[in-house]
Amino acid sequence: MARDEFDHFADRLSAAIKEKGSPVCVGIDPNLSLLPKACLCDSADSAEQLELVGQFCADVLEAVAPYVPAVKPQIAYFEQLPGPEPFSGMALYSAVIRAARELGLVVIGDAKRGDIGSTAGAYAAAHLTGEDAADAVTVNGYFGLDGVAPFLDAAQPTGRGVFVLVRTSNPSAKQVQDFADAQGRPFYEHLAGQVANMGETLLGRSGYSLLGAVVGATYPDEARRLRSIMPQQMFLVPGYGAQGATAEDCTAAFHDDGTGAIVNASRSVIYAHNRYPNLEWKQAVAQAAKEFAKDVALAVY
Amino acid sequence: MARDEFDHFADRLSAAIKEKGSPVCVGIDPNLSLLPKACLCDSADSAEQLELVGQFCADVLEAVAPYVPAVKPQIAYFEQLPGPEPFSGMALYSAVIRAARELGLVVIGDAKRGDIGSTAGAYAAAHLTGEDAADAVTVNGYFGLDGVAPFLDAAQPTGRGVFVLVRTSNPSAKQVQDFADAQGRPFYEHLAGQVANMGETLLGRSGYSLLGAVVGATYPDEARRLRSIMPQQMFLVPGYGAQGATAEDCTAAFHDDGTGAIVNASRSVIYAHNRYPNLEWKQAVAQAAKEFAKDVALAVY
Repeated sequence: MARDEFDHFADRLSAAIKEKGSPVCVGIDPNLSLLPKACLCDSADSAEQLELVGQFCADVLEAVAPYVPAVKPQIAYFEQLPGPEPFSGMALYSAVIRAARELGLVVIGDAKRGDIGSTAGAYAAAHLTGEDAADAVTVNGYFGLDGVAPFLDAAQPTGRGVFVLVRTSNPSAKQVQDFADAQGRPFYEHLAGQVANMGETLLGRSGYSLLGAVVGATYPDEARRLRSIMPQQMFLVPGYGAQGATAEDCTAAFHDDGTGAIVNASRSVIYAHNRYPNLEWKQAVAQAAKEFAKDVALAVY
Repeated sequence: MARDEFDHFADRLSAAIKEKGSPVCVGIDPNLSLLPKACLCDSADSAEQLELVGQFCADVLEAVAPYVPAVKPQIAYFEQLPGPEPFSGMALYSAVIRAARELGLVVIGDAKRGDIGSTAGAYAAAHLTGEDAADAVTVNGYFGLDGVAPFLDAAQPTGRGVFVLVRTSNPSAKQVQDFADAQGRPFYEHLAGQVANMGETLLGRSGYSLLGAVVGATYPDEARRLRSIMPQQMFLVPGYGAQGATAEDCTAAFHDDGTGAIVNASRSVIYAHNRYPNLEWKQAVAQAAKEFAKDVALAVY
């Protein structure tokens, strides 16, 4: 699937999901402590190790591309990769985006950036403009509309997208995000309402907005309520697999017609060599991607 | 002031403030559209322009170092700098940190990173470990304790610090952060209480925690309440100058003894060539830094 600069992000994502037959996304999180042995370098040469990590990412992309419509490189892992200079891994982040797009994958850059207006504009320029930018990025919405608007402004002209963090999938999220008003409505639902408002004029032919939401899958009842507060948002759903959510849990994020969300798995797919010790590591990744896509499709469709 | 790896961040910052006589910080936000003409390159050569931006940052650091204890490079501007490759400006971010530390400045990396546990660990490794890392970073606290803890774990062994965003200084912050419970307590005060709890075992000799808070200066009454909720947090106070807060407004973030906060100004100092057209641009920056430091010291002490 060639990338048409002027297509709407939600339409492009919807088409890619339809083509591959499953609403799933694989997280590209290159973590040295989890890599297959074949991808670790014997010497302490950081340039050589970086090259091996690049090869690992390229191989993972090839292994998963037949089964999944999208990938989500997690920029934190690229920022922290050892290399000849600090932040040497950032060039690899761009290389992964390029390689994924050449394979016809939709790329969601998991950057969780966010700041006030002018600074948000700088982040948006860095992550959503130019040929090497991802198709969409994740954004932290704590600053409100004028922190999110610069990302929308950068995304719109080139058919890109934005996912605002609404509900996260980690154990201590509740501590912060469940803070409730007099009616018992939690903070994350308040934020969800704001996301729905910000995105309502940005719809594609699919009926979905270019402004989506990150909604953790660990609490299906919450996903169901958020689904009704944000009917036009595409949900990016982390938490599957290594973080404990099942395909069944994830269905709460979808509309009844099986649209409106994409489920992400990272470690359970890209480090599948531990789960399939009899397969060569790339085959293990392909197998895990195939099963992940099948499991989610069966639960959702 | 040489950097002692084992000193506590809050003690180091307090000593630097005492030495320079003013609790101020200058933001290093290299924005091509605001640079003095002398720092813009005639050709479209992005490598040459990047070098000129590097020289601009180095000159700004030298100009402000006699008057201010700390600088705050804003990583968003470095991420978006044009260059031969995407993210070429990240090497400059590291160079600015090195140069600032060589001048004896405390460096707060304004990265506003944040994610769930394992990914937060990757960000913490990238931004708080190794010789080239800043003395402290800003962090988004929306994920709760298990998103902040990896930053604290990385900061503690090398005497570094963390500032969690509590209240931001932008116009639409209220929309999100003022969401209130049945007692009328806003969300940002709830988050402040959590920051106070997370930081209470991490105190230095100064009585302040290595876990500080970002508290916008645009609403002094709020800063006063946050001061009482977080007595042991160092406040990083944005909003001075270009964002509209006065030195008087900022005093609300301090304890009565004049300790506990550091006030940041970015554009009003580093782009002071517009305010002092008769001075050479570096002299204008030095002059603005000197006046900023004096104004805040007069209001606070």
